[in-house]
Amino acid sequence: MPQDSFYMDLALNNARTMKGQTDPNPLVGSVIVNDNRIVGIGAHMKAGEPHAEIHALRMAGEAAKGGTIYVTLEPCSHFGRTGPCAAAIVEAGLKKVVIATLDPNPVVSGNGVAMLEEAGIEVVVGVREEESRQMNEVFNKFIVEGRPFVTLKAAATLDGKIATHAFDSKWITSAEAREDVHVLRSENQAILVGLGTVLADDPELTSRIPNGRNPIRLVLDSSLRIPLDAKVVADGQAETWIFTSRQTDPEKKAALERLGVSVFETSGAVQTDVADVVRILGEKSVSSLFIEGGGTVNAAFLEKGLVDKAVLYFAPKLVGGKNAPTFLEGSGFDLMKDAVDLERGEFTKVGKDFKFTGYPVKKEFTK
Amino acid sequence: MPQDSFYMDLALNNARTMKGQTDPNPLVGSVIVNDNRIVGIGAHMKAGEPHAEIHALRMAGEAAKGGTIYVTLEPCSHFGRTGPCAAAIVEAGLKKVVIATLDPNPVVSGNGVAMLEEAGIEVVVGVREEESRQMNEVFNKFIVEGRPFVTLKAAATLDGKIATHAFDSKWITSAEAREDVHVLRSENQAILVGLGTVLADDPELTSRIPNGRNPIRLVLDSSLRIPLDAKVVADGQAETWIFTSRQTDPEKKAALERLGVSVFETSGAVQTDVADVVRILGEKSVSSLFIEGGGTVNAAFLEKGLVDKAVLYFAPKLVGGKNAPTFLEGSGFDLMKDAVDLERGEFTKVGKDFKFTGYPVKKEFTK
Repeated sequence: MPQDSFYMDLALNNARTMKGQTDPNPLVGSVIVNDNRIVGIGAHMKAGEPHAEIHALRMAGEAAKGGTIYVTLEPCSHFGRTGPCAAAIVEAGLKKVVIATLDPNPVVSGNGVAMLEEAGIEVVVGVREEESRQMNEVFNKFIVEGRPFVTLKAAATLDGKIATHAFDSKWITSAEAREDVHVLRSENQAILVGLGTVLADDPELTSRIPNGRNPIRLVLDSSLRIPLDAKVVADGQAETWIFTSRQTDPEKKAALERLGVSVFETSGAVQTDVADVVRILGEKSVSSLFIEGGGTVNAAFLEKGLVDKAVLYFAPKLVGGKNAPTFLEGSGFDLMKDAVDLERGEFTKVGKDFKFTGYPVKKEFTK
Repeated sequence: MPQDSFYMDLALNNARTMKGQTDPNPLVGSVIVNDNRIVGIGAHMKAGEPHAEIHALRMAGEAAKGGTIYVTLEPCSHFGRTGPCAAAIVEAGLKKVVIATLDPNPVVSGNGVAMLEEAGIEVVVGVREEESRQMNEVFNKFIVEGRPFVTLKAAATLDGKIATHAFDSKWITSAEAREDVHVLRSENQAILVGLGTVLADDPELTSRIPNGRNPIRLVLDSSLRIPLDAKVVADGQAETWIFTSRQTDPEKKAALERLGVSVFETSGAVQTDVADVVRILGEKSVSSLFIEGGGTVNAAFLEKGLVDKAVLYFAPKLVGGKNAPTFLEGSGFDLMKDAVDLERGEFTKVGKDFKFTGYPVKKEFTK
């Protein structure tokens, strides 16, 4: 029914408004309708506080009885800090439950629906499903796989270059696009660059959003060549973790650790193993990773199938240069048919630049 | 007035419908309004036939008297095959003339307006000016500068690559995007590639649009190394012109000419001089040039400031590769601030691909 989409959109909008304040919980919104009138709205606002459905039920009070509740995520069936929402819905006498998407956790997925249906309540699943899944894409990946959701970001000219042949890169994109990047940084728990970026630019890798959260700064440095006076090592503005290969110099490692930097060895013999990086981050409960590497780092993650989302800023300019670096180097795929397809791709305008977002299609790689 | 835009849009739409059938004349549309009622519409349909205003005046008949005429291009003031349209407007007793844009030819620009104003008619200029200029961008360039309007086309992955590091390039974009290219080919009088493309792909460079016009096929070949059995030399499907440097082998030149190919020497000592190519095309009355070169050819035209419009198709895929060719190579600019800015840039969707169109900002180049 078209009304279903209308009410679910309202629930989605309220849920999205809470972005950044529900961690480690997902964004959830809810709307209760009775006799063609909205009688309650709710959203999950903070971990430990009531779920979206409970807020909406309390607002509706007696008016919930016989009504329909819309909720962007399957109501929970477990006894957590707020009790099972499915039970509360049964108790309040709702007649129908419309759900955008099931719980992504395979261990509990479908349990809420079963509890509702056993109580004789009509349940509809799948209204605005993709919107709801996308809203919680980070949470969904982490809860299911125990690995961070990986976003690859790049800012390039329309011909794909991130610097001139003489390695000049200031500036490619506009102030608006760079500000947009700072918002994304503040929404991610960790931000990653290669040693090359540290040596070339000595970046701070902090979010310049007022009250923005500073992500953990990660550096791929296979043989610990990072200078001890690099800003990410010395400035103390945020945590810094360095990922290296098995070729670790114990003295340099100790010196870095004395400066408060964490050093993680990976299984790579010569190069840092990027699959290990993602695994270690998952073990450390880092749920989101933002890659701002150069072409070599970006290619390492993409070729291993580790990238969940690509965010690419393109300045409407052309710089050329056979030897100018692009944002995706490495050896690349041999055949065009093996290139990584990006689905759900779209361009939006940010200032005078263009921002592409898309999702790499996961597949078995031929190389 | 908002009505002005409404009526001018109608005139523009009728004009655009005639695309491809008015050469060498521009697209022009006209609408006559009297007492808030449309009493006549017209468009220029074929060289030698009446101008847009004349068609609209004939349709309106007596109802034109005291009305307002909308025309997308300044009415002519010269006695051509159809007499000056400005005089016909005066004679028909119109009270007001609304014009999108003045005649681009500086020799006659403003003369039509002057003729109308001398007769006491109110004249407004500039309603939908940019739309009208863009509609006739090819004509405007050629009439003013005597040089073809140059469109640079490329089809690449989102990371700017036109082939893998192993030079595999089939296929990057979808069938819909390739069909769109065939339409553009049929709208251009000449299509240009480098010798590298001929050697690698042996393309036919024809338009596969039913009833599509085949453009003249141009090849940059600085030392006449093109094989005599290359399709563009041997297949006789369309004219082929080869542009070379001063290092011409007279025997090879004669052999090509015997096969019906025209060979033009340029002033380049070793490489074909691309500014000469554009100049020679202008002298041969070629008003539009479509460049489908590789990265080296594209860079040669762009770096010399010879590109009027860029049409870039991007497939939503990533292929990577430090040595994979991009659509813009050459040496490139030294500093990012010297990159060529593209104005009026926009992305549209073609099939599953994205099509960017933009206009290089002309400037003095630092290299």
